[in-house]
Amino acid sequence: MGLEQPLVNDLSQGIKGSLNLITDVPGVRVGQITIDNGDVHTGVTAIRPHPGNLFRKKVPAAAYVINGFGKSVGLVQIDELGTIETPILLTNTFGVGTAINALTKQLLAENKEIGDTTSTVNPVVAECNDGDVSNIRKMALTESDVSRALSITDGQFAEGAVGAGRGMMCYDLKGGIGSSSRIVKVDQDHQYTVGALVMTNYGFLDDFIVNGIPIGKPLAKLIAANKQKEEKGSIITVLATDAPLNSRQLKRLAKRATVGINRTGGFIGNGSGEIVFAFSTTNLINHFAKRQFETITRFNDNQIDLFFRAAAASVDEAVLSSLVHAESVIDRKGRLRLSLTDALQQLKVSQPQYTEMVDNVKSQLGVK
Amino acid sequence: MGLEQPLVNDLSQGIKGSLNLITDVPGVRVGQITIDNGDVHTGVTAIRPHPGNLFRKKVPAAAYVINGFGKSVGLVQIDELGTIETPILLTNTFGVGTAINALTKQLLAENKEIGDTTSTVNPVVAECNDGDVSNIRKMALTESDVSRALSITDGQFAEGAVGAGRGMMCYDLKGGIGSSSRIVKVDQDHQYTVGALVMTNYGFLDDFIVNGIPIGKPLAKLIAANKQKEEKGSIITVLATDAPLNSRQLKRLAKRATVGINRTGGFIGNGSGEIVFAFSTTNLINHFAKRQFETITRFNDNQIDLFFRAAAASVDEAVLSSLVHAESVIDRKGRLRLSLTDALQQLKVSQPQYTEMVDNVKSQLGVK
Amino acid sequence: MGLEQPLVNDLSQGIKGSLNLITDVPGVRVGQITIDNGDVHTGVTAIRPHPGNLFRKKVPAAAYVINGFGKSVGLVQIDELGTIETPILLTNTFGVGTAINALTKQLLAENKEIGDTTSTVNPVVAECNDGDVSNIRKMALTESDVSRALSITDGQFAEGAVGAGRGMMCYDLKGGIGSSSRIVKVDQDHQYTVGALVMTNYGFLDDFIVNGIPIGKPLAKLIAANKQKEEKGSIITVLATDAPLNSRQLKRLAKRATVGINRTGGFIGNGSGEIVFAFSTTNLINHFAKRQFETITRFNDNQIDLFFRAAAASVDEAVLSSLVHAESVIDRKGRLRLSLTDALQQLKVSQPQYTEMVDNVKSQLGVK
Amino acid sequence: MGLEQPLVNDLSQGIKGSLNLITDVPGVRVGQITIDNGDVHTGVTAIRPHPGNLFRKKVPAAAYVINGFGKSVGLVQIDELGTIETPILLTNTFGVGTAINALTKQLLAENKEIGDTTSTVNPVVAECNDGDVSNIRKMALTESDVSRALSITDGQFAEGAVGAGRGMMCYDLKGGIGSSSRIVKVDQDHQYTVGALVMTNYGFLDDFIVNGIPIGKPLAKLIAANKQKEEKGSIITVLATDAPLNSRQLKRLAKRATVGINRTGGFIGNGSGEIVFAFSTTNLINHFAKRQFETITRFNDNQIDLFFRAAAASVDEAVLSSLVHAESVIDRKGRLRLSLTDALQQLKVSQPQYTEMVDNVKSQLGVK
Repeated sequence: MGLEQPLVNDLSQGIKGSLNLITDVPGVRVGQITIDNGDVHTGVTAIRPHPGNLFRKKVPAAAYVINGFGKSVGLVQIDELGTIETPILLTNTFGVGTAINALTKQLLAENKEIGDTTSTVNPVVAECNDGDVSNIRKMALTESDVSRALSITDGQFAEGAVGAGRGMMCYDLKGGIGSSSRIVKVDQDHQYTVGALVMTNYGFLDDFIVNGIPIGKPLAKLIAANKQKEEKGSIITVLATDAPLNSRQLKRLAKRATVGINRTGGFIGNGSGEIVFAFSTTNLINHFAKRQFETITRFNDNQIDLFFRAAAASVDEAVLSSLVHAESVIDRKGRLRLSLTDALQQLKVSQPQYTEMVDNVKSQLGVK
Repeated sequence: MGLEQPLVNDLSQGIKGSLNLITDVPGVRVGQITIDNGDVHTGVTAIRPHPGNLFRKKVPAAAYVINGFGKSVGLVQIDELGTIETPILLTNTFGVGTAINALTKQLLAENKEIGDTTSTVNPVVAECNDGDVSNIRKMALTESDVSRALSITDGQFAEGAVGAGRGMMCYDLKGGIGSSSRIVKVDQDHQYTVGALVMTNYGFLDDFIVNGIPIGKPLAKLIAANKQKEEKGSIITVLATDAPLNSRQLKRLAKRATVGINRTGGFIGNGSGEIVFAFSTTNLINHFAKRQFETITRFNDNQIDLFFRAAAASVDEAVLSSLVHAESVIDRKGRLRLSLTDALQQLKVSQPQYTEMVDNVKSQLGVK
Repeated sequence: MGLEQPLVNDLSQGIKGSLNLITDVPGVRVGQITIDNGDVHTGVTAIRPHPGNLFRKKVPAAAYVINGFGKSVGLVQIDELGTIETPILLTNTFGVGTAINALTKQLLAENKEIGDTTSTVNPVVAECNDGDVSNIRKMALTESDVSRALSITDGQFAEGAVGAGRGMMCYDLKGGIGSSSRIVKVDQDHQYTVGALVMTNYGFLDDFIVNGIPIGKPLAKLIAANKQKEEKGSIITVLATDAPLNSRQLKRLAKRATVGINRTGGFIGNGSGEIVFAFSTTNLINHFAKRQFETITRFNDNQIDLFFRAAAASVDEAVLSSLVHAESVIDRKGRLRLSLTDALQQLKVSQPQYTEMVDNVKSQLGVK
Repeated sequence: MGLEQPLVNDLSQGIKGSLNLITDVPGVRVGQITIDNGDVHTGVTAIRPHPGNLFRKKVPAAAYVINGFGKSVGLVQIDELGTIETPILLTNTFGVGTAINALTKQLLAENKEIGDTTSTVNPVVAECNDGDVSNIRKMALTESDVSRALSITDGQFAEGAVGAGRGMMCYDLKGGIGSSSRIVKVDQDHQYTVGALVMTNYGFLDDFIVNGIPIGKPLAKLIAANKQKEEKGSIITVLATDAPLNSRQLKRLAKRATVGINRTGGFIGNGSGEIVFAFSTTNLINHFAKRQFETITRFNDNQIDLFFRAAAASVDEAVLSSLVHAESVIDRKGRLRLSLTDALQQLKVSQPQYTEMVDNVKSQLGVK
């Protein structure tokens, strides 16, 4: 649901979508399974670009690597062909193999031609390392978990410490899944939506800023005990739009995710796998093309800043939304990992001199 | 074992290694498991860059995508950090998920710190689609197959229709695994080895040339019935060297694989996943670095052509070697898929006008 | 005019265009100025993608760097926007600054808005180092030379040691400008042309092969005195088509130039600047777009191999054509630099044992 | 001189260098020529990586394209070889050709071997479009201007509307040249400097933020008349360090410039040429290498975040410093283009309700 009101430095100057979620882009759906079992706190989040057969009707797409300390799969073919032909799965680093297998089986079941009379299929799976909170070495994700996530096609979905975001930490606070959307009005006749979904697992609390307010510094002192020593997190971003952007334009769009990420305090750390996927639900590509030539709509780059701003703004907000919606959790070692809202409350109580700053941040974030 | 004598157009003007295999590079080892079970003809091939703990002592490395219609994994992190920290696995397209899982489990067993006190690990798995010969939809590869391949660390290993190459087709002939090596003498005091291992699954027979002899055209008429209509193959290349090349130089080296591939008739088809990995066994990178600064040897690019030529030559020969060593097989539909040697014999018998051409080709390839 | 008959290993299996030049692509024109003055042997070659105002109607385009030891300009913006908005100029390495200036002035004269009410313009200039033959240190190219080349818009144009190719050496023989074209028939209703123009300045004679015949080796012994010690040449390739390929597809097309280059003996040497530009004359992009959305034709990648083959074949032939059409020249140091045809003749006379090989090569190349 | 005190959100947590300029990196020098002549307001800025012969002793280097709507030259070869072998020149878009020519002539004069007995040389020239303020169509830059800039090798140098920055506009305010530096302490024995120099010509005033304070919005209303309608600016960044980073690591460092740029309100607009060069003054590469192998120091990526933070922080500050040090100028159409300091003063006087915000910003920036 993103944030309630626009951030003061919101680049988009636009209107939020009705759900303020990536699912405001018509046809996009999300399914999530959360796994909480002993010292395992993980899950899977599936983003489905459109409700039809994705292998038969591929979406124009791009992937962009901000920093490549990561194990996401599918990028090689996206780069070459400019298409995505499966749902996009998010999970933990050691769930990638299982996610590929489950996704492949689903695609094989849906398409008898794959691997028989036609080519194979390119699974898209992205990951962050939730090993700080969850016992990732157990490789707990099952194919059944993935299949169940794939079977859910919600418009409304939860943010925070859910799905693949269950065990993620962002700025040493509880992170997870966040989402937001913006309406882009190109002219009288053309209005589109840009939606972002992020899985946040990066950053140092010292660096955390909310609309320029350096709230991270006092918070960092508060929870010094549990903070990580070196950046080894990641952030995965998925951008969706119904505007007729082609793969080159979507790659440019994807690159603007970095603006949103940096605005909350990210600096693209060495150990961060920062990867962005972007797709359009328009100008779909037929796998079994009857015609070699198709008539499509091309959008001129001259006005593309409208979309760049919407991407930057919705990612900025989605990151904050993942923090706002996350709850505190007990990690694999029994440590309490504070949510942003709990941390703000503790700071206010224990360090009254920060009351104004805390209230200011809460107000910006729409947190009570 | 590559070919017996040098090709007439051998670019390297060099000497072959003693085994004429990638394992001529000191420390490099190969393990393979072949799966033949009903309509399943597949397998796995593992290349181990050095005998020690790869996660703790990573090899400088690079990956290069000639054409990205492929599902290989691990490239994002290789590109960012310039290292490989696991064995490189080759298998069929739908075995990638299982290969990742098996490889991850082995690394977890060997390194208690992974995912606990240190970062995760980046599995490197490359694939071709053997669905033309094997029932790839069965997803027959098991984690046990992979583990067994990883436990074999042979210097001598078989080429042809073995391991991951079991079901591969190259130029509409039986392809598979091929290997070759070249000695590079830089100066009086410095001599190195470049080794190549390829998994060949690409090309149209019409285009096949051996040292410029267009033997593919008459062969294509011979086996017209079974030839594929559109390029949907791939070729994976692994280059190894003990020369102190850094990741930038290894990326340049990897790019020269395309020269070898093109010399036998490849044209980088749309549907071909042509991916190259290159690593050096020198200047290893410590995961748990005690010192932030290390003293290493840097090789000047001025003389790098010596290595470029060796890479091109050894890949050229490795492709041909995969064909020379492959045997004819019965595919998943009961069709006989001819080996190069059987096809040459049939051509000679059925079309005597090609006798001279066939004998010429056989002589070039060292085939009786 | 390319070669008279198709090469035996011609990948395209297609028909040559009526001129067998890049200008077979409707609208493409070429202008050249040759400079021969004392020890200066250089020039400029201009390729104009269409006869209209290129800044106002840009062509979809891509650039691909095979090996980046080169100083070509304009690639950054081509990569970002996927367009070319000026003629493409070829010249010697130290002529690039002057070429930029002359090209900019022409664009400024043609477009009063540039740098005033609209953006600037992106000159595209590519170069090879002709310093082996010409006194490149004199920086002899003038803006007037460039302007004159830009004013010529020929359909028919000379190949060999002319224009920017005047001082270029290829395989230690006289190189220069070469061109060729292929007709691509997609279906009953759709036929297109792919044209290539190359400026050849790379390669070792030892490696030179013609359709697989290793004629370079005996030739290399013949002219051992003058051959270079290390690769410091380059090859620039321009590909044109009237097929509706977008910038992503054109980048893929550009990459296939390497196939043609490698087939004559290239191995992508360290010192070689191998750069490819590709553009389409269809689906032009308006600089002053009245509409943000345009309806265009998209070509499906499934059949793109037809174009890949045509690109590889026309580049292969264009390289050979540059050699076939070049004449012997006296270089800046008074040395005679042999043309391929003169070298073949000398070989035949001085080494009669190569008579059959020479005649075979001549026959393949259509040389008397 | 950068800013007087650290920004509240300074990522580096480090100490500024003694000059707080890129020239704090030992050996780095800067020369600038400002051209003010009628409606021409432009210039040239030269950054010299070390005082010796750059062609003979090249610096390890990288270039990174944040957004490629730009005409900078030299990147192709930097990408391939990982070196810079000339001073880096900054100027206006239409000065690139002249800058190349002047730079080439200087290199030819200094190195008799270039273009004769050894290879050519790769000029590095970056540009922004100052056509909003200056009559760029006059192409006023002369080779003499460039030569004079190259002959100046200052440690101290002016920031603001000087040199190549004379005609640049940043956030619709007067921009130009800015610089800053940070000390990085790796361990007890190893301390290095990271320096940044930027040429700022990008951004919308509405988006401008100083340490999170959205001062751009009230300022934008103040000077609504002159603000540009679409992003057509650019920002060039040069990063220097004496740490032993190799070209891969320098490319990673260069990418972090985007963090600094985004923190002041940048969103990587469509029309912005955002290009970063990074070089190290350690582990120089000999052009005429006597030995093929050299012993160098390698820095482990594990601690590279120290440098990433310093790069982000120094770029952030350098952008602000370019604004703080720029003076108001009369542009080519006679319009007064306000400096940041003049604009703040006007805002305070005309809109007293912003007094606190203005004072806050001034305090952050150390402006009286």
